[in-house]
Amino acid sequence: MVGKSPVPLGKFVLVLLRPRTPTGHPAKGVVGDRSLVVADVFRDGHDSVAARLVLTGPGDDEPTYSPMTALGNDRFEGHVEPATCGMHTLAIEAWTDRFGTWRHHLEARAAAHDPDVEVELEVGARLLEALAPGAPSTLRPRLAEVITTLRSVTCTLATKLAIALDDALAAALAPVVDLHDLTASAPVGLRVDPAWAKAPAWYELFPRSEGGFVGTGKRLAAVAEMGFDVLYLPPIHPIGTTHRKGRGNTLVAGPDDPGSPWGIGSDEGGHTAIHAELGTAAEFRTLVADAREQGIEVALDYALQCSPDHPWVREHPEWFHHRPDGSIRYAENPPKKYQDIFPIDFWPADDADRVALWEACRDVLEHWIGEGVRVFRVDNPHTKPFVFWEWVIAEVQSRHPDVCFLSEAFTRPKVMHALAALGFTWSYTYFTWRDEAAELREYGDELATVPDVDYFRPSFWTNTQDILAGPLRDGPPAAFALRAVLAATVSPNWGIYSGFELCENQTQSDANTEYLHSEKYEVKARDWDAPDSLVPLIAALNAARRSHPALAEMATLRFHHSTDDVNLLVYSKTAPDGTDPVLVIVNLDPLLMRDGQLRLDLGALGLGGGGAYEAHDTLTGETFTWHGPDPYVRFDPAEGRVAHVLALRPVGA
Amino acid sequence: MVGKSPVPLGKFVLVLLRPRTPTGHPAKGVVGDRSLVVADVFRDGHDSVAARLVLTGPGDDEPTYSPMTALGNDRFEGHVEPATCGMHTLAIEAWTDRFGTWRHHLEARAAAHDPDVEVELEVGARLLEALAPGAPSTLRPRLAEVITTLRSVTCTLATKLAIALDDALAAALAPVVDLHDLTASAPVGLRVDPAWAKAPAWYELFPRSEGGFVGTGKRLAAVAEMGFDVLYLPPIHPIGTTHRKGRGNTLVAGPDDPGSPWGIGSDEGGHTAIHAELGTAAEFRTLVADAREQGIEVALDYALQCSPDHPWVREHPEWFHHRPDGSIRYAENPPKKYQDIFPIDFWPADDADRVALWEACRDVLEHWIGEGVRVFRVDNPHTKPFVFWEWVIAEVQSRHPDVCFLSEAFTRPKVMHALAALGFTWSYTYFTWRDEAAELREYGDELATVPDVDYFRPSFWTNTQDILAGPLRDGPPAAFALRAVLAATVSPNWGIYSGFELCENQTQSDANTEYLHSEKYEVKARDWDAPDSLVPLIAALNAARRSHPALAEMATLRFHHSTDDVNLLVYSKTAPDGTDPVLVIVNLDPLLMRDGQLRLDLGALGLGGGGAYEAHDTLTGETFTWHGPDPYVRFDPAEGRVAHVLALRPVGA
Repeated sequence: MVGKSPVPLGKFVLVLLRPRTPTGHPAKGVVGDRSLVVADVFRDGHDSVAARLVLTGPGDDEPTYSPMTALGNDRFEGHVEPATCGMHTLAIEAWTDRFGTWRHHLEARAAAHDPDVEVELEVGARLLEALAPGAPSTLRPRLAEVITTLRSVTCTLATKLAIALDDALAAALAPVVDLHDLTASAPVGLRVDPAWAKAPAWYELFPRSEGGFVGTGKRLAAVAEMGFDVLYLPPIHPIGTTHRKGRGNTLVAGPDDPGSPWGIGSDEGGHTAIHAELGTAAEFRTLVADAREQGIEVALDYALQCSPDHPWVREHPEWFHHRPDGSIRYAENPPKKYQDIFPIDFWPADDADRVALWEACRDVLEHWIGEGVRVFRVDNPHTKPFVFWEWVIAEVQSRHPDVCFLSEAFTRPKVMHALAALGFTWSYTYFTWRDEAAELREYGDELATVPDVDYFRPSFWTNTQDILAGPLRDGPPAAFALRAVLAATVSPNWGIYSGFELCENQTQSDANTEYLHSEKYEVKARDWDAPDSLVPLIAALNAARRSHPALAEMATLRFHHSTDDVNLLVYSKTAPDGTDPVLVIVNLDPLLMRDGQLRLDLGALGLGGGGAYEAHDTLTGETFTWHGPDPYVRFDPAEGRVAHVLALRPVGA
Repeated sequence: MVGKSPVPLGKFVLVLLRPRTPTGHPAKGVVGDRSLVVADVFRDGHDSVAARLVLTGPGDDEPTYSPMTALGNDRFEGHVEPATCGMHTLAIEAWTDRFGTWRHHLEARAAAHDPDVEVELEVGARLLEALAPGAPSTLRPRLAEVITTLRSVTCTLATKLAIALDDALAAALAPVVDLHDLTASAPVGLRVDPAWAKAPAWYELFPRSEGGFVGTGKRLAAVAEMGFDVLYLPPIHPIGTTHRKGRGNTLVAGPDDPGSPWGIGSDEGGHTAIHAELGTAAEFRTLVADAREQGIEVALDYALQCSPDHPWVREHPEWFHHRPDGSIRYAENPPKKYQDIFPIDFWPADDADRVALWEACRDVLEHWIGEGVRVFRVDNPHTKPFVFWEWVIAEVQSRHPDVCFLSEAFTRPKVMHALAALGFTWSYTYFTWRDEAAELREYGDELATVPDVDYFRPSFWTNTQDILAGPLRDGPPAAFALRAVLAATVSPNWGIYSGFELCENQTQSDANTEYLHSEKYEVKARDWDAPDSLVPLIAALNAARRSHPALAEMATLRFHHSTDDVNLLVYSKTAPDGTDPVLVIVNLDPLLMRDGQLRLDLGALGLGGGGAYEAHDTLTGETFTWHGPDPYVRFDPAEGRVAHVLALRPVGA
């Protein structure tokens, strides 16, 4: 065809700048949230142009249109606000604004007393005739009147020009979409998650330590009172006995050692079975339903690996790696060995075996979705093929648009980002190992920057069942408190592994981040009513997160300075429109009193007017009245104060 | 299919970072030039990986492979060096380095005295058997010997390990491409231009002022002696008489006024005809051939517009815009009118008419290519459809891979970039209006930045037939000299419009940049042998550009500082590999002596060692011996010195 082009024969060049992912995979949004769209839109010549966004959701008969606004220099922006979960398509449409162009030129001609202006009035009359069918019926009589006047042989030129250039006419015509020279961009994907997926708080517990599903159900009220949105359970499946690890990750298990929940599969079943000691399938469904009633989603662990006793090992030896001696290859990171775990070979020699395997893995998800689960925490996704995740997540979400996945990939940055790009809803992050002020600032800035915010949803975990790091190791309660404040207010998503609120601080050794008496290998009894627990702080943090839309944002994070930039971390967030300024100041030193004067960028907080402002501490209920950019703050761990989480407003507002 | 993906079922994620264009159009290279390719390459898991580049030129039976090197953190880079003009495709291939992975693990196992090591030796033996067919025949006996040893029942484990881990074996196997898990990226386009297209110097003249083609032929030697690579001629076609503009752009032409060459077309013919006063087709072909013999390409002007007398107006009224009164719409930018020019309507109502028009426009290019022309300067491409350019350039270059196009789009930045992305070889730039040190630094930095350098080839013009701007207006010779130095050394491509070397400095008015007695509307007689012309400086600049590969680069441009950052512009370039450091210092004040101490970043110049260095001035032949980063410089326009263009080298090198 003459005129082959990425946008075949379109008059416009349309370059989508945001949302986008580096790999061309879909960006992300959530139901009801306004997502910013930025594009370069231009055509040849000097005509006025207009553009709009076209959002089409799964099952939509008609797309939803929303306007784009010219920012100057050929850049346009607009917003989409998806109403349903699932994979949407987003496109840009641009057209020539014929009326605007004609009016602009007519003004210039009139001012220059151009003798050709009469011909141009007829051009305008014809244009209005062409636009009339697309105009609201209430406007049509007015258009007919204008057309008649423009063609009148009795009206004066001055009258005609006055009518043609009437601002009211232009305003009335502005919403009439001309669609002349209409050019549409290639559509891109926008994966829309449920509204709650934007900023969930996670709580992890081992159900066996709580007495199984029934006992865990008794903890639901406490988890809900702390304000958590997701309750994540490590694998709930039968645990193998062959090479089972003993307490403290010893190579030989004692007769009473329960084994690691990640050693999945025994004679009792594999990934779709429930460990008998936890309860029945009915009890599990009850737990999921009871949790949802309290506003909590139960998340299961999706760990694609098998104990040597898993039924798949017998039934599908072709799904595993084999060694020359005929044995199945267990998991290793030489010289480390994990004999209790067989990794799956996602690329069997026969492609039919691969298809069967991938479908079986998908069916595991389908099984638990059938049991009511909508959230999966995926174990080590970076050791399985990227294309598998891309396929299985799209497969599942095409049938169950509200299902979400958390990527547990603590690995290289580009791998973590690729997993987010190809479908994972959220991702664990390096936060767990970022302690110093400078590295927290650098990491926060990185995550707040486009294009990260368009597809990579960071989840900040204070700790996990594998990781007790940084100031938490042998740390005082203040260390736990400050890490909770950071996780809950820097990132829209955060989580804790149970025991955190009790300040469990003992590691297995100085050489690793494993817990002493790791719950992975034994049942733990805890005194949930212990004094001095962090439950009130955690509840206050999650309450602040629910009251303040600013805390659900990543892109608006800004760091400020103080006279002690080593020990005090000072940052703010606002809602996307700049409202709801929240200022957080954290003393990173859990041991010593630290104080200083802030160096706030009040303009970034919408307080550039110079007047006084109130700072309401959402953690303590105190309200301070401050003037200027350098209020004094003081934190003494001995007094139990590690941070301020401050809602700001001008005095009198 | 199970596993749908942008890279179907590939194990790798491959993200090309450079070369690329914002719109996904092909990047650019030139024959014989090494182009940098940067990509992120990774797969799941922890195996060692390798990657290579695959370059396929037009008509290639086999692609050319070149290695990629791991830079760490999943980033790889390599180079391609295309050998022919035309559209190439570039892809990345990645695979799992099985031998490297196995060897790495074997080392860890051996160090840990792993009892499983014997099984792993058999794994290695099988792997070497698999690799042997791809190894050079000289290596195969050695591989057979290693395999036998690994399986020997008499050899000690220590012997086997020593042989398996022998560095010589690893080195010998390194070039053996395993291609296990081979994954290829989607190919992208790489348009390859002739070698000379990387850094041409342009000279524009009106042939009618030289006495037509024969007279212009007599100027060739002088143009060649100045070191220019391209001789650009404004349109050479018959000029219309209807509404012809008179001298000084007056509305009514006198009987002897020759008219603007851009008023193309008369009874004598249109875009494929030659104005009789310039000479014959044979004389034109002679000019093109003579020029090429002297190393100069003749560039024609491709101006898609018609005078009212153009044959297309009669033969194809459907190719023009019509007004309600039946008249053809002339060019306007209301209230400005250009009655001597009819713009073409590239979108006739009937698509068959559009196809006929676009093909006629293409055939104009084909005609002149048939006459020996290989370079076109395209007039106002931003007022014609982007898709037209994309199509016509690809059409022409598919048949004539060495044909190149210069975009005369002095318009908004994104439009200029889009034209470059969709096919234009070079682009005029804003240089002509950038005078101050700060704005020159900003603009230079912008052009030197990825991704611009991968597709946007800037051409810096001191002046054009339309533009006499900045310090040139009523300026002294020093103003012309300093602008020549800037254009010739900041940008790889530069050009002048004739008369520049004679320092023609009078404008039509203070309100515009038009020349007094504009050559567009009258024939100009010039005294080429006038004393004090800039011919020697221009020749020296072009000679320096040919001797120093650094001056053909854009991406290596770096600005330095001095004690007078307002008046002294200090910058350097090197070859891509850091060699050939060239330092330029320009006094931007054409009226006053300016001096100061430089603040050089000697590390960026490859002179970080701290010793003395020589600065050889390519303009004057002087050599200075300098120590340290702050030599003193002094420029006095009264003494005729406006700049240094210095080739640097360490003393003793």
